[in-house]
Amino acid sequence: MNQDYIQPHPWSLIEEGFGKERVKSSESLFSIGNGAMGQRANFEESYSGPTFQGSYIAGVYYPDKTRVGWWKNGYPEYFAKVLNAPNWIGIDVEINGTPLDLATCSNIKNFRRELNMKEGWYQRSFTATIPNNIEVEVVATRFLSLSHDEVGAIKFEITPINSDASVVFKPYIDAGITNEDSNWDDKFWNTTKVTSEKNRAFIESHTMKTNFKVCTFMHSELFLDGNKSEINPTSKKDELSVGHSYVVDVKKGQEVTLVKYGGYTVDRNHPADKLQKAANNVLDKVTMVGFHGLLQKQKEAWAQIWEMSDIAIEGDIKAQQGIRFNIFQLNQTYTGTDSRLNIGPKGFTGEKYGGSTYWDTEAYCIPFYMATKNQEVARKLLKYRYNHLEKAIENAEKLGFKNGAALYPMVTMNGEECHNEWEITFEEIHRNGAIAYAIYNYTRYTEDYSYVPEMGLEVLIGIARFWQQRVNWSENRKKYVMLGVTGPNEYENNVHNNWYTNYIAKWCLEYALEQLDHVQQNYPADYKRIIEKTKLTNDETGLWKKVAAHMYFPYSEEHGVYLQQDGFLDKDLVRVANLDRKERPINQHWSWDRILRSPYIKQADTLQGFYFFEDHFTVDELEKHFDFYEPFTVHESSLSPCVHSVQAAKLNRMEQAYTFYLRTSRLDLDDYNKEVEEGLHITSMAGTWMSIVEGFGGMRVKDGKLCFAPKIPEQWEKYSFKINFRDRILKVTITQEGANFDIDAGEPLEILVNEKPITLSA
Amino acid sequence: MNQDYIQPHPWSLIEEGFGKERVKSSESLFSIGNGAMGQRANFEESYSGPTFQGSYIAGVYYPDKTRVGWWKNGYPEYFAKVLNAPNWIGIDVEINGTPLDLATCSNIKNFRRELNMKEGWYQRSFTATIPNNIEVEVVATRFLSLSHDEVGAIKFEITPINSDASVVFKPYIDAGITNEDSNWDDKFWNTTKVTSEKNRAFIESHTMKTNFKVCTFMHSELFLDGNKSEINPTSKKDELSVGHSYVVDVKKGQEVTLVKYGGYTVDRNHPADKLQKAANNVLDKVTMVGFHGLLQKQKEAWAQIWEMSDIAIEGDIKAQQGIRFNIFQLNQTYTGTDSRLNIGPKGFTGEKYGGSTYWDTEAYCIPFYMATKNQEVARKLLKYRYNHLEKAIENAEKLGFKNGAALYPMVTMNGEECHNEWEITFEEIHRNGAIAYAIYNYTRYTEDYSYVPEMGLEVLIGIARFWQQRVNWSENRKKYVMLGVTGPNEYENNVHNNWYTNYIAKWCLEYALEQLDHVQQNYPADYKRIIEKTKLTNDETGLWKKVAAHMYFPYSEEHGVYLQQDGFLDKDLVRVANLDRKERPINQHWSWDRILRSPYIKQADTLQGFYFFEDHFTVDELEKHFDFYEPFTVHESSLSPCVHSVQAAKLNRMEQAYTFYLRTSRLDLDDYNKEVEEGLHITSMAGTWMSIVEGFGGMRVKDGKLCFAPKIPEQWEKYSFKINFRDRILKVTITQEGANFDIDAGEPLEILVNEKPITLSA
Repeated sequence: MNQDYIQPHPWSLIEEGFGKERVKSSESLFSIGNGAMGQRANFEESYSGPTFQGSYIAGVYYPDKTRVGWWKNGYPEYFAKVLNAPNWIGIDVEINGTPLDLATCSNIKNFRRELNMKEGWYQRSFTATIPNNIEVEVVATRFLSLSHDEVGAIKFEITPINSDASVVFKPYIDAGITNEDSNWDDKFWNTTKVTSEKNRAFIESHTMKTNFKVCTFMHSELFLDGNKSEINPTSKKDELSVGHSYVVDVKKGQEVTLVKYGGYTVDRNHPADKLQKAANNVLDKVTMVGFHGLLQKQKEAWAQIWEMSDIAIEGDIKAQQGIRFNIFQLNQTYTGTDSRLNIGPKGFTGEKYGGSTYWDTEAYCIPFYMATKNQEVARKLLKYRYNHLEKAIENAEKLGFKNGAALYPMVTMNGEECHNEWEITFEEIHRNGAIAYAIYNYTRYTEDYSYVPEMGLEVLIGIARFWQQRVNWSENRKKYVMLGVTGPNEYENNVHNNWYTNYIAKWCLEYALEQLDHVQQNYPADYKRIIEKTKLTNDETGLWKKVAAHMYFPYSEEHGVYLQQDGFLDKDLVRVANLDRKERPINQHWSWDRILRSPYIKQADTLQGFYFFEDHFTVDELEKHFDFYEPFTVHESSLSPCVHSVQAAKLNRMEQAYTFYLRTSRLDLDDYNKEVEEGLHITSMAGTWMSIVEGFGGMRVKDGKLCFAPKIPEQWEKYSFKINFRDRILKVTITQEGANFDIDAGEPLEILVNEKPITLSA
Repeated sequence: MNQDYIQPHPWSLIEEGFGKERVKSSESLFSIGNGAMGQRANFEESYSGPTFQGSYIAGVYYPDKTRVGWWKNGYPEYFAKVLNAPNWIGIDVEINGTPLDLATCSNIKNFRRELNMKEGWYQRSFTATIPNNIEVEVVATRFLSLSHDEVGAIKFEITPINSDASVVFKPYIDAGITNEDSNWDDKFWNTTKVTSEKNRAFIESHTMKTNFKVCTFMHSELFLDGNKSEINPTSKKDELSVGHSYVVDVKKGQEVTLVKYGGYTVDRNHPADKLQKAANNVLDKVTMVGFHGLLQKQKEAWAQIWEMSDIAIEGDIKAQQGIRFNIFQLNQTYTGTDSRLNIGPKGFTGEKYGGSTYWDTEAYCIPFYMATKNQEVARKLLKYRYNHLEKAIENAEKLGFKNGAALYPMVTMNGEECHNEWEITFEEIHRNGAIAYAIYNYTRYTEDYSYVPEMGLEVLIGIARFWQQRVNWSENRKKYVMLGVTGPNEYENNVHNNWYTNYIAKWCLEYALEQLDHVQQNYPADYKRIIEKTKLTNDETGLWKKVAAHMYFPYSEEHGVYLQQDGFLDKDLVRVANLDRKERPINQHWSWDRILRSPYIKQADTLQGFYFFEDHFTVDELEKHFDFYEPFTVHESSLSPCVHSVQAAKLNRMEQAYTFYLRTSRLDLDDYNKEVEEGLHITSMAGTWMSIVEGFGGMRVKDGKLCFAPKIPEQWEKYSFKINFRDRILKVTITQEGANFDIDAGEPLEILVNEKPITLSA
């Protein structure tokens, strides 16, 4: 744990007291989003201290020209970057001619931030003395509307405490923004039109190269003592920004309020030449509803989300706050309404890992959305990859693969690869496996088989072709080997026969063959269409069978475990517990070669295979592998603790499972990885949900049935969650005494609890 | 072979006919240098076609801030770059007001370049019609003086052919130059003073960050029909450049000549505040001597170099031209007079591989300079590394090594590492072995043991400490293993137990132990000093013994060969001969992962060990390894063919040895690697010399004696070379009939020819 200033609270994040050194961290933690856009918790008024400004629009990216030290054939020419979008939240404030700027204020009191996760709003309040000695009280409340997802609203209240004052509000929108993460200091945005109309203003811009057209807009209203004031603002604009000025004389103790609505209309959702009109329309709608009306809708929308996705924990407030923070951020990032979107590792909270989609979506996020939303949302995430199949085939062709072999990108916005380290881009190919696995996982959970003949089978064929071409026959071993890969553990590069990769490759081949059979039997028209389209031959499937049957897996007889890769046992096998604490995290202290030749594991690798394919192994085997690998695991990936928590729970090691749970759920709140300033770890938050539902709750789907093996950490009195399983809403409550299962709706359902069947009905 | 426009000639490079598409290639091939400076064969007059401008000053570099896609701990902050220096060769020419620019001329006839290697000058001549229809004949002759190494001289002759004309010569110097190889488009030079004095001009500049101070200067003289003309030029200067204008009316058929002297004085050789004075002094000297006097000295200086270093080949003009080109370029790059300098892979012919020193110096260049110059020159190259020992220790510390372990940099200007690919910088550590090997090689050849107690032993201790810390004990193999390295074959990265690296590491440990003993016995005072300085303990040397005794070497019983690294036999072992020609060179066609998992070898790796440690293996063993590895070798490193040529000759495969010889000697002339435009491959040129002397001549030093096993390719009638061996100059002449050995000077010498002793006397 590297910070602990966030106050424990079951439903809110609360920071008390102002600390300049915490501003960037809090900007990440108090981020808000509504799936269509999001923003860091930057101040509305100007702030001259260190800050990391960020507003993001879902799906709006820029292909930044790749910059590397040494070019390698096959590197993508562009790296798609999440773009810092025009700022609409800005409200400069002057009091008697002096700007309000917390960095220049004295006597800052009662500084408080609250991110109310239950209701979906963020509030910042403080009292401060500005350089001209006027003391003001400020309360700024902000949210991004779920009901009108192009709009956010801000209520900015000021009360002069010690004197009458002339207050000037200067709400503005500004397209003169930059990205911190830029390779060539390119200009990412081009602004074409700046318009000001009474209380409203608009900036029309488009992104360079990708040409996403965006209209950024604002509308402001002034209130004095709660009464709307019809002051007409003066307006000032330049090529990139436009601002209004509301000047108002305020008595000592009197409250003056600016309500500002703002946001973006985007040509993904409107005709490109009607963006300003669309902005006007949405502003007409929301101003009619008003700030409080909109906030009421916000509370209702969040209540609906929580109704289904909440996990309530009693007796452990930090654990409670952690899981809710994770669930809240996941829902802020992706709402499941748009199959063109996906879940970026930092959501709308930072620029790093500029691409939108990693294998995190398939390996970690789909189970969460599938269980807390519905199968349609999960299906949209699968369809996203189907839509990118052609690009995945092109990507494989760039690396020399042929005949429809598909390699999904490590990082992508639009299906093209946009990551550029050879050891990752070219070699961390296990990502292909996770994409196939998600199809299996979806089908198993939902029993919706239609996805496979409609779309999934083509994806499976492309992936199988890739694996078959990627292995080679080793005369030496008389087996198929897979050379030069990077497994999930990125602290190894260019290894041979990574067990996880070989295993998932073999599984992909077998699963593709099995689905081919199934589709042939049951969906003959689809089968015909797919065979014609893919030109799949029996020679090919024959090869798939051969490769699957003769895949090589490194194994140690001595230890009775599969080896993470060839040569693992040659390492100096000193356990993590024996490392000098001062050298942790090793990725901040050791040179790369030292990390690579060490036995230390960044995140579950062999154990990731045991997680995905739990049914293929006995509990004894799991235990043996867990005991062999976990002691070498440094958990320096945000995706590591959750898998280990699930497995520790399965092995009845509840204390260890609980420790891993806390680490995954409070990773950002407590800043375990010393990098929260850059943004949050969104995708691993879905892993936190798994730790509870699959770990403690022991939820699985086996042989078509939903199963539980309920456990509870001794620190907790009770926890409960809901699951949408094949359109039944199941409520699970687990206490130290036992477990209770209800279904809220739908047909009766037989589940297995600790392997015993129970039939639930509504 | 990718080009063949260079005319075969025993002593010159000749290009005939003007081709714009060849300009950049010829700028590389016709480069001139004198060890202290060098330049590409750019035109003196302005040229608006594609060109790559380059003038370089030995030892003047810039630490460019490292730019990588993804930072890794341990990367050097800076990458030292060879700097393009201010241009002193420029002579703009106007004829009747129209500029002479070959890109705009019509009717270009008799265009000819000659690089006269025998005499050390470069001439370009042509007849052309400029856009105003005046036809001119131009002859431009240029050289960089060996006798006054701060100066070069140009004679630029113009004759109007079809009309009288007003000719304006505008000699200039210009510090407004840029580097093509720049990470951040930094300004590398700052110019502080621009001075013009009658026929002379000076620009004082310093490099940013490194603050090398340089005075660029010029002096011009005008001649009409060979008679000096005392026209006073007009002068024009700005912040970065200064030019003079000489206007002269010339009759049709009359020759007008500008002689220009120029160059650099540098604060490495003069007080920083006296650079202009030093420039004036050297100009006074050379103008007194005059262009023809200076050229005469140039011929004499080159005659002296060739007297010792020439290899004459009869019956094969292309082979002859190739070896002389190689020897010429080596002597242009490094003259052995300054122990602060070293041999950059591109010499003074381009910017790429911006650092000055690679392991190429120790592995390839030292034998050439040792045999064709003298032991002092070789000793200077060794001392260069001794001077950098502290930096090598710091470099190792940055990677986590301790207690005086030294890791020499992969690329360096001043001892600091300045390369930034993890797989090279951190892992291609075999370079340390070559540095130790050079000490052994020097001592063996010269019998000068004094270097070891004076300097070398400290280097050997640092290197031995590194190897001992770099290996780890494998419980699995009960051997010391070395994980995560890149061998000489850079088409493998992060491999385990690279045989070459393990072998040279073991050898370094044993050699260091042996030298420690020897110094202790014979130089007790030095021993005491060194032990006190290095704090070397018996525990440490005990560990060295243990590691050397228990080092692991991958070996295949089936093939009877040492394996290049663990897992080599798992590859798909298709020979190079069976590859599609269209996919060669593979580094221009394949993605990096495909190269890595292929069996293809960029340059001698296991065979490099057999080259260095020939005596440790039988000829049978060499043959077995050559036959196993060469068929997988693509020779895409310039350093590859020479070693294979030496070994093929040893195995009596003369046809193959000859093919490799041609490839190494004409690598740039024939542009085998399709990249000659970027500059020449200087360090591999020393390998070409090895191919003849060690390959065909079979020269070795064994048990303190010089040995030969003379062979001759069937294409050759005769070849001869000289060797400085322990202060005797030995002349070796080999014909199809036999071999002849003479010594020109010094004490009688017993040599072995085909293992039979012969005593030679002067």
